[in-house]
Amino acid sequence: MPDRYLQDYVEGTVAELGTVSLSEQEILDFGRRYDPQPFHTDPQAAAAGPYGGLIASGWHTCAAVMPLIVNGYLSPASSLGSPGLESLRWLQPVRPDEPLTVRTTVRQVRRSASKPDRGLVTGLLEVAGGDGALKLTAVIVNVIAARPEA
Amino acid sequence: MPDRYLQDYVEGTVAELGTVSLSEQEILDFGRRYDPQPFHTDPQAAAAGPYGGLIASGWHTCAAVMPLIVNGYLSPASSLGSPGLESLRWLQPVRPDEPLTVRTTVRQVRRSASKPDRGLVTGLLEVAGGDGALKLTAVIVNVIAARPEA
Repeated sequence: MPDRYLQDYVEGTVAELGTVSLSEQEILDFGRRYDPQPFHTDPQAAAAGPYGGLIASGWHTCAAVMPLIVNGYLSPASSLGSPGLESLRWLQPVRPDEPLTVRTTVRQVRRSASKPDRGLVTGLLEVAGGDGALKLTAVIVNVIAARPEA
Repeated sequence: MPDRYLQDYVEGTVAELGTVSLSEQEILDFGRRYDPQPFHTDPQAAAAGPYGGLIASGWHTCAAVMPLIVNGYLSPASSLGSPGLESLRWLQPVRPDEPLTVRTTVRQVRRSASKPDRGLVTGLLEVAGGDGALKLTAVIVNVIAARPEA
């Protein structure tokens, strides 16, 4: 991907970033390290639990789609980090090997008044499962450097 | 910890859940797998970058504090998952080996009208660094089972 800067983020732009999935082993490893609840760590207990089987930690779903965001929405030349999220919805559980298809839409681009070499880009993140139904939505905010003046 | 149910979540209750930290190696491993931006993956590039050194992925900070939430705020007897977050703020970067001290405050407890065997608990999550300044805040929402009637 060519380098992108604040000037290249245009409100309304939709990008299809690709598809990822999480294996049962990855879900178990992440759950045991970071989110040790039975439906993330123990296939047998999960089968008897509220989801009828193992599901990924919601944090794991966020992390899993992040490489696609880094490669297809952000740019190493201009990505300066994030102050946070405006909302995050885990709409449906994510099960082992389910395809997760990632789309972003640029919602708002705002140059900083106090630091005009950068700005805030607000975007909608949508993650759909194999049947097209949404698994996760979030309103993400990123600090993006402006392209230096020629 | 004894089992806790919806009836045990009382608005205004503050809990100090403990302290965790992330090593440089953990930050690098997580960043290379899930958030491959130079300030998460490469100590030398990070030193020359916007944060002047390596920092944890924001998703990693969320994941890192989750075991304390699972053990001190949730309960395996009643935790039924989460529909999402109302907000998430990454206020300050998290550096290797920094202590992260975790506190929760119960904000709202609401029994479900349609499924009265459970309810939604909204809480404020606060994560402070070694100097006491906040690193992360979030408004978290959990589905919690009610204690079965005797």
